[in-house]
Amino acid sequence: MMWKAVGLSLLAFSFTVEVLSWVRRRNKAKKILNEVIFFPSEMGCVEHLLGPSKLYPCFCALPHGVETSLSRLLRHLLSATSSLDLCVFAFSSIDLCRAVLALHKKGVIIRVLSDKDYIAITGSQIGYLRKAGICVRSDVGSVYMHHKFAVVDESLLITGSLNWTLTAVQGNMENLIVTMEPELVRPFIQEFNRLWEINDPARTLFNSTSA
Amino acid sequence: MMWKAVGLSLLAFSFTVEVLSWVRRRNKAKKILNEVIFFPSEMGCVEHLLGPSKLYPCFCALPHGVETSLSRLLRHLLSATSSLDLCVFAFSSIDLCRAVLALHKKGVIIRVLSDKDYIAITGSQIGYLRKAGICVRSDVGSVYMHHKFAVVDESLLITGSLNWTLTAVQGNMENLIVTMEPELVRPFIQEFNRLWEINDPARTLFNSTSA
Repeated sequence: MMWKAVGLSLLAFSFTVEVLSWVRRRNKAKKILNEVIFFPSEMGCVEHLLGPSKLYPCFCALPHGVETSLSRLLRHLLSATSSLDLCVFAFSSIDLCRAVLALHKKGVIIRVLSDKDYIAITGSQIGYLRKAGICVRSDVGSVYMHHKFAVVDESLLITGSLNWTLTAVQGNMENLIVTMEPELVRPFIQEFNRLWEINDPARTLFNSTSA
Repeated sequence: MMWKAVGLSLLAFSFTVEVLSWVRRRNKAKKILNEVIFFPSEMGCVEHLLGPSKLYPCFCALPHGVETSLSRLLRHLLSATSSLDLCVFAFSSIDLCRAVLALHKKGVIIRVLSDKDYIAITGSQIGYLRKAGICVRSDVGSVYMHHKFAVVDESLLITGSLNWTLTAVQGNMENLIVTMEPELVRPFIQEFNRLWEINDPARTLFNSTSA
């Protein structure tokens, strides 16, 4: 009978260990994505990410098959399956524009908010987005809309110092944080929705008509 | 004897539950700081944070005792006890400069890296920092050093779209992430140290002499 008691205790102890290691495994599996990307980085061809088909290989002079800061950023953007909210001060990077257009073509719901003064800078891609049917709003306030963040599928935040311009992507020293940490993502979603609402042209029109 | 076995099993089960709740409590206690600050926010007096003494209350026209985005940023900066590494594109905010000077006076080791073209903008505070004996370096490259981040005590990262200027702090739509997440903080510490080394004036002098 004593052996039975010892056996049962051992069983309960094994159960403890098993439960603990299961909790540990589950926590590891739930590990939240946190990544930092710095610019400048080496240049590389990104046609394998943006090109129309893998059947047409690219013969440009840039190194092929290298992972760069731009390719890492593009991969995160292109991972969108349902929505992409962009809040960008300036937008003149052709590669980033191609990524957004590709997502739009795939059926991803895209909302773009940009600064009214920088919406028409040289090389601005905003016109191409509008032409493709993407909903773009510009802020109506008198101050700069200086944000440079993107929220992918309402779960992945990309934010930092990097403006979506050619100079920023190819030259400057810049940083980007890519995170799925809910405590960081949630406030940006709320802020985007708030800014999207207050910069609704219909609302502005209504306000100026009623004034 | 059977009751003894049941008793022992119950004891082992209680032990399981106790260990699990301890793990849970420990994880909660270890909760990592993650905060988002948006600008603009309402204005408020920050003299209680920066003023020379609480014996001299401030009589300025700004609201007193309100928590604003600037006061939250200042609190995080002023929490530094050993070191503060600043990597800022432009630095013309008087309040932020006063915070840095106060930390320097307290004995906190401060390193400032700023963009060479923006180091002398109107209202730049860099001169005051240098005059106080704070080590300031500017980048020697031809591109913009566009970062705007601070690392407090090698454990707290403050980064975002906000330049350390009066316009950014008082007017623009801006964001800041404040985090102690090691996966985010560590790369910024490494990048700061890398930039600090490559922009060492002694190194530049040596290189140009030997060229």
